[in-house]
Amino acid sequence: MQITRNSLDTNQGPGDWFTGTVYIDTVTTPTDPSRLGAAAVHFTPGARTAWHTHPFGQTIYVTDGIGLCQCEGGPVEVIKPGNRVYFGAGENH
Amino acid sequence: MQITRNSLDTNQGPGDWFTGTVYIDTVTTPTDPSRLGAAAVHFTPGARTAWHTHPFGQTIYVTDGIGLCQCEGGPVEVIKPGNRVYFGAGENH
Repeated sequence: MQITRNSLDTNQGPGDWFTGTVYIDTVTTPTDPSRLGAAAVHFTPGARTAWHTHPFGQTIYVTDGIGLCQCEGGPVEVIKPGNRVYFGAGENH
Repeated sequence: MQITRNSLDTNQGPGDWFTGTVYIDTVTTPTDPSRLGAAAVHFTPGARTAWHTHPFGQTIYVTDGIGLCQCEGGPVEVIKPGNRVYFGAGENH
């Protein structure tokens, strides 16, 4: 059991992953045999991720604000608090 | 891409997993090749989980209230909002 109490810094998202300013608070990083990474990510207005994929997929759970999401070739969707979005393995979004 | 908007019910935790009343809001369930399950779990005062393990470990991220956690044979630890707890694969807690 490993407890982490307020010892992690809030980091800005790297410029090659994001356009605009994004703040990332790490929740967990993978520890073998887990492959799970999780973070609380706050987007400032207009900020967005670069197109990307995840080898095992990704779930977004919206806690605040109103966002937009899109998969390559699909419509732009509005997402609000309480909504969940699952991006499948390798799905460009 | 799969968006879920407010269509999931809040469920009470089953009695063989929990003592006392616990409310579970599912965030995501595994979709192959992902093995990730995630949920927002609210414990009413005094409620607790039964001793259990996870094959790939578990991370708890505390959002509200004050909780207690323990691994088998270890001390009882107090956890507060913003704290993270990682339970390793197979670690009884």
